[in-house]
Amino acid sequence: MSILLKNVIIEGKKRDLFIEGKIIKNIGDNLDLKAEEEIDAKGEKAVLPGFVNCHTHAAMSLLRGYGDDLSLKEWLENKIWPLEAKLTPDDIYWGTKLACLEMIKTGTLAFNDMYFFPESAISATEEMGLRALIGLVVFDLSESGQPENIEKTYYRLQSKKSDLINLSVAPHSIYTVSKENLIWSKNFAQKENLILHIHLSETEKEVDDCLKENNLRPAEYLNQINFLGENVILAHSVWLSEGEISIIAENKSSPVYNPCSNLKLVSGEIFPYKAFKDKNVNICLGTDGAASNNSLDMIREAKFASLLQKHKEKDPTFLPADEALSVATKSGYRALRMGSGEIKEGNLADLILVDLNKTYFAPGLNFVSDLIYAASGDCVSDSICNGRILMRDKKVEGEDEIIKKSKKIAEGLVRGQINKN
Amino acid sequence: MSILLKNVIIEGKKRDLFIEGKIIKNIGDNLDLKAEEEIDAKGEKAVLPGFVNCHTHAAMSLLRGYGDDLSLKEWLENKIWPLEAKLTPDDIYWGTKLACLEMIKTGTLAFNDMYFFPESAISATEEMGLRALIGLVVFDLSESGQPENIEKTYYRLQSKKSDLINLSVAPHSIYTVSKENLIWSKNFAQKENLILHIHLSETEKEVDDCLKENNLRPAEYLNQINFLGENVILAHSVWLSEGEISIIAENKSSPVYNPCSNLKLVSGEIFPYKAFKDKNVNICLGTDGAASNNSLDMIREAKFASLLQKHKEKDPTFLPADEALSVATKSGYRALRMGSGEIKEGNLADLILVDLNKTYFAPGLNFVSDLIYAASGDCVSDSICNGRILMRDKKVEGEDEIIKKSKKIAEGLVRGQINKN
Repeated sequence: MSILLKNVIIEGKKRDLFIEGKIIKNIGDNLDLKAEEEIDAKGEKAVLPGFVNCHTHAAMSLLRGYGDDLSLKEWLENKIWPLEAKLTPDDIYWGTKLACLEMIKTGTLAFNDMYFFPESAISATEEMGLRALIGLVVFDLSESGQPENIEKTYYRLQSKKSDLINLSVAPHSIYTVSKENLIWSKNFAQKENLILHIHLSETEKEVDDCLKENNLRPAEYLNQINFLGENVILAHSVWLSEGEISIIAENKSSPVYNPCSNLKLVSGEIFPYKAFKDKNVNICLGTDGAASNNSLDMIREAKFASLLQKHKEKDPTFLPADEALSVATKSGYRALRMGSGEIKEGNLADLILVDLNKTYFAPGLNFVSDLIYAASGDCVSDSICNGRILMRDKKVEGEDEIIKKSKKIAEGLVRGQINKN
Repeated sequence: MSILLKNVIIEGKKRDLFIEGKIIKNIGDNLDLKAEEEIDAKGEKAVLPGFVNCHTHAAMSLLRGYGDDLSLKEWLENKIWPLEAKLTPDDIYWGTKLACLEMIKTGTLAFNDMYFFPESAISATEEMGLRALIGLVVFDLSESGQPENIEKTYYRLQSKKSDLINLSVAPHSIYTVSKENLIWSKNFAQKENLILHIHLSETEKEVDDCLKENNLRPAEYLNQINFLGENVILAHSVWLSEGEISIIAENKSSPVYNPCSNLKLVSGEIFPYKAFKDKNVNICLGTDGAASNNSLDMIREAKFASLLQKHKEKDPTFLPADEALSVATKSGYRALRMGSGEIKEGNLADLILVDLNKTYFAPGLNFVSDLIYAASGDCVSDSICNGRILMRDKKVEGEDEIIKKSKKIAEGLVRGQINKN
């Protein structure tokens, strides 16, 4: 497969870009190359790397809007958990497809997933054409979350690994996974060269409980059992001491900032961006699941990310637009070990086109600033991942069916719930 | 002019809606009425009242992205003020048109404006078809901002008042307008039955300076000179004591919450929503100008508004989606004294259609929650104001020219600035 993008804007200049297979082969002026597909942007679309959503629960898109504006306890116990208990592999398949559709539409081309039924998530993601790291969730209370079952699932899913799909070991958190199983996770990840994906210090309760139980704060506890390392992605990471931030920095782990979810669920603290940045930590950005955001739009997440940190640091120059863009793209690809995040020859052809005719790009004095502060994900017109066109002029193959199916499933789940109550 | 909206979703049900002149005449099932224009939504679009942007500087859209991520001092002194000094009436005309275009595209049908050259703003707004309250800016340091000139301008612009356009007296702030001129503003507003629009307590410095100078906090100072009243709109209002909030409540003035601008410019405090709400104050929402947001999208502003308050109050149930929607619509129309904000027979035909096929409306378990937390202004497909269709299927008359013109003007302004430095 080859694709020629004519007259696209790259770093402010009108260029052509030629994709061969999964690689950006040439960037130049007036490229005279034959391609199977050609998109002429007429100077009206800019090329950007795709966004990377570094912490989400994709299939939770099925539960979007079900139980908002509730206390965390009521939300989980009366709404989310009862519904989750009924989810089938088929539900996860369609829920993940719905999330992928929203991501494609808003320019996210890679994500870090943690949810049930990984096989369904893999099928859905592979078919939609996105890159993902699909977590095998270690969880003490579930059958599937036991080490022996994770191991079985892992070996069974070996054949599903591809250019697009890789697996991670995803112990849910320190309060839902025993020390023994955390150590097992770490060792298994080491043995198989896998990324570890865990929730860390999202709430103050987690810190208090850990102090009570282990006389250590959560990151100290993970460090004590040698869990931390370059392969570790730490979702949320809001309630951290200076010492814990140093530990995370020394171990070269990647924390994920989830501003909307932290505000909406009232985690109570704001991500310590500056402390991480001062220690050169690879900070990533994520939306969390659509049940607690309720959007998967990384552009809007980046605006929240930037504005909230300016407020926290009392410094309007802090976390400027270009840095927010880099965190939402390059840092994410680095954390997920995917060779993308920049538009240059030889890189993977993971890129999006942004429609510069949108009103919020006028008058157009500063494109990156307009993108982060004024635009929303709706500005993305075309998405290409691994050299395959996933969206062309806002159209994604099969989108009507995905929306129809997800509605039917969600209505069925909720109806069942109402009848039960 | 008559318009028949067929098969639109009103409060969850498929209905027809008939507009005659500027009024919603009938809402019913299978209305068999002839209309000059007909829009068949096929059950795929919801009707909502338009959003009301209660504090903005419309023409500043020309300066979007010019000087972001700077300290307030550098932003104002090196960027905004030098450029503003060069603005002509024609610039304001096109800048206001650009703002109106973005508002129409994102479902805002009324706004409260405060900027230079009101006559240009009026022409632009009237032509675009939006409702607005155009402020006559009282400002000690400018010629046009002197009471005698405001008075002249006011009487000269009488003939421009219309269904859509009204004028306000807009003393810029307590630190740029003398006590004498504040009192003049109040008296003139009383005499002419006008709304007063003023910036209040956006920064801590304003409070400190007022305490030094008057031994009173800003709202106390305004109360002492009998400035406050039901006709007063107070932009920002973030640095307030409990006592000042009581004063504002007793005077039935309307404060405007501008969450993005307050975060981006680091006002340093979060709007005291709960304290106002507890005293039944009419709280409104605004975006501020596009130079300090940088979006005029009220849906995205409403998400910031809600999430930031949940965080502030440490309560995820606080400021739920339906309340945010009401603040962004009904409360705004009330403050601006425009008879709209609800979809019912006899009301003004100010309404928008929202495209329910957008991915973020799936699976669709809770429409209002999806609208505020998951959608962005791009979901608006059609805008109707005062019975006139301003946008149909995402198309606004003359939009290409507005974008082209605004780009040319902004580039000229910035180029002039660079050559001068």
